[in-house]
Amino acid sequence: MAILVVGSVAFDNIETPHGKVDDCLGGAATHFSLAASYFTPVRVIAVVGKDFTAEHEAVFTRRGIDIQGIERSNGLSFHWTGAYSGNMDEAKTLGTDLNVFETFDPKIPEAYKDSEFLFLANIDPVLQARVRMQMPNVRMVCGDTMNYWIADHAANLAKVLRELDVLLINDGEARMLAGERNLVLAAQKVLSMGPKTLVVKHGEYGATAFFGEHSFPGKAKVSHPFRAPALPLAEVVDPTGAGDSFAGGFYGYLASQPELTPAVLRTAMFYGGVMGSFAVERFGTERLQNVSRQEIDDRFKLFQEISHLDYAGA
Amino acid sequence: MAILVVGSVAFDNIETPHGKVDDCLGGAATHFSLAASYFTPVRVIAVVGKDFTAEHEAVFTRRGIDIQGIERSNGLSFHWTGAYSGNMDEAKTLGTDLNVFETFDPKIPEAYKDSEFLFLANIDPVLQARVRMQMPNVRMVCGDTMNYWIADHAANLAKVLRELDVLLINDGEARMLAGERNLVLAAQKVLSMGPKTLVVKHGEYGATAFFGEHSFPGKAKVSHPFRAPALPLAEVVDPTGAGDSFAGGFYGYLASQPELTPAVLRTAMFYGGVMGSFAVERFGTERLQNVSRQEIDDRFKLFQEISHLDYAGA
Repeated sequence: MAILVVGSVAFDNIETPHGKVDDCLGGAATHFSLAASYFTPVRVIAVVGKDFTAEHEAVFTRRGIDIQGIERSNGLSFHWTGAYSGNMDEAKTLGTDLNVFETFDPKIPEAYKDSEFLFLANIDPVLQARVRMQMPNVRMVCGDTMNYWIADHAANLAKVLRELDVLLINDGEARMLAGERNLVLAAQKVLSMGPKTLVVKHGEYGATAFFGEHSFPGKAKVSHPFRAPALPLAEVVDPTGAGDSFAGGFYGYLASQPELTPAVLRTAMFYGGVMGSFAVERFGTERLQNVSRQEIDDRFKLFQEISHLDYAGA
Repeated sequence: MAILVVGSVAFDNIETPHGKVDDCLGGAATHFSLAASYFTPVRVIAVVGKDFTAEHEAVFTRRGIDIQGIERSNGLSFHWTGAYSGNMDEAKTLGTDLNVFETFDPKIPEAYKDSEFLFLANIDPVLQARVRMQMPNVRMVCGDTMNYWIADHAANLAKVLRELDVLLINDGEARMLAGERNLVLAAQKVLSMGPKTLVVKHGEYGATAFFGEHSFPGKAKVSHPFRAPALPLAEVVDPTGAGDSFAGGFYGYLASQPELTPAVLRTAMFYGGVMGSFAVERFGTERLQNVSRQEIDDRFKLFQEISHLDYAGA
């Protein structure tokens, strides 16, 4: 079933120990859409400027992604400049030019209205809430946020959290949102803010899903979290978009399944890790544009192999 | 089969956000022995002072641990003072009094000579090498070390590494030993120094085993690492000895098995995590003294449940 994603489509200047790229197509909605497109139809709501050309359109359309919701505006697209060094576990933001995103008012095309899955990528929670309100009948809402919104837009963010089925954030964001250093206690606190399930991404250490009272319709509460590994990688070329790619794999798989069960959610966690592991192999979205379904399924098996006691191939 | 462990038996003063204890029985060999004792016979080589009483002996002997190799010396036992704060992911050492350990010269009782498994806990690599030399016919040698020996005793440590089947260290130590930030590259470098298998402990994120060319006798090289989860815990009372307890569960299980296969090593990684998760529930060795085999096996199942896609109980 189709996912509607709202978020940034941007251009990135990125520097890592492996090199430097300028004006590389990026943005949370871009990474998310490409990763999810291997599992389910995806529709994008975003705004871009005159610098978004037919070549950039084709990155989406070649993967069958519906971009009629990408609004064209005068001016330049959102632009991010960042650098990674050392262990590359955190980007240093060197510049953020919102440009056309500054006045973005998301409009949902009529053809998108029947989307059953909504993903609110990391943007202003006011915009997230506005999109959520225009899609009252979706089956599931999943969202992301970041330190900036947690610190300075808490009240707006709180409204979004109350509407979420799944919140996907990283360790630091979870601890910050909860004001609590212990991750389990932090997760309990975040779940009490609204999300039925919380997925915490640990970068190179994988991700953990924590479940609230009503994560699974018609089932008793699942009391234990679930941990998915990340693939130990000898070379991380560019971590930009790894989290959004995780979200795309995770949510894309969920949306492709007829029912949300604990088993489906576990599998989605693994597909999240799989898509994140591909994303970092090349700069920008290069790898996510060209991975094959066979490669995805082979890597999924590899994730089982590195984490399961009884994996048949062992 | 019996494990011979050489390492510290000590008294700890520990402060954590959950309280403060003084003169608490500790030391790497103590935590290791208690954890391993649930799986296989354990024999200890260490030195203690007059402050080591019948009450402390009983902590070992109640678990069936052979302590005839614990030498009694004049003076005081090794004493460590440390504190944890915030996320408790690293101890701040406030004081180290080697005391009787300063002149420790490990002697191996005749009755220990047939031990088939040797564990070289974190002590001066000169002592580790001396014990290794006195046990030429062991089936397997596993060892630990720490930043102090890596930084200032590199040549002595190098000799020990060449003799190891398994090296168990944490993330920071692996990166420091290799001089390399990427964990996969660091692991490759450490494996090239001698150990056939490297187990890297990630604290609350679990542990990863990396395999060298000859990890498994008679088998082709296992090219992929293996990741074991840690249990997400709402309360960590005292992390002291968690790594040694991991090592005890890991090696104790290995020593209890007739053959070292990839499946046995995977299971050992999980038992390591299980024993580490018990260790941190109480100050010092309190929890490891009193856990039951049933609790251990229940928690092992829990580790499967939180990490396996197809766990039957899901």
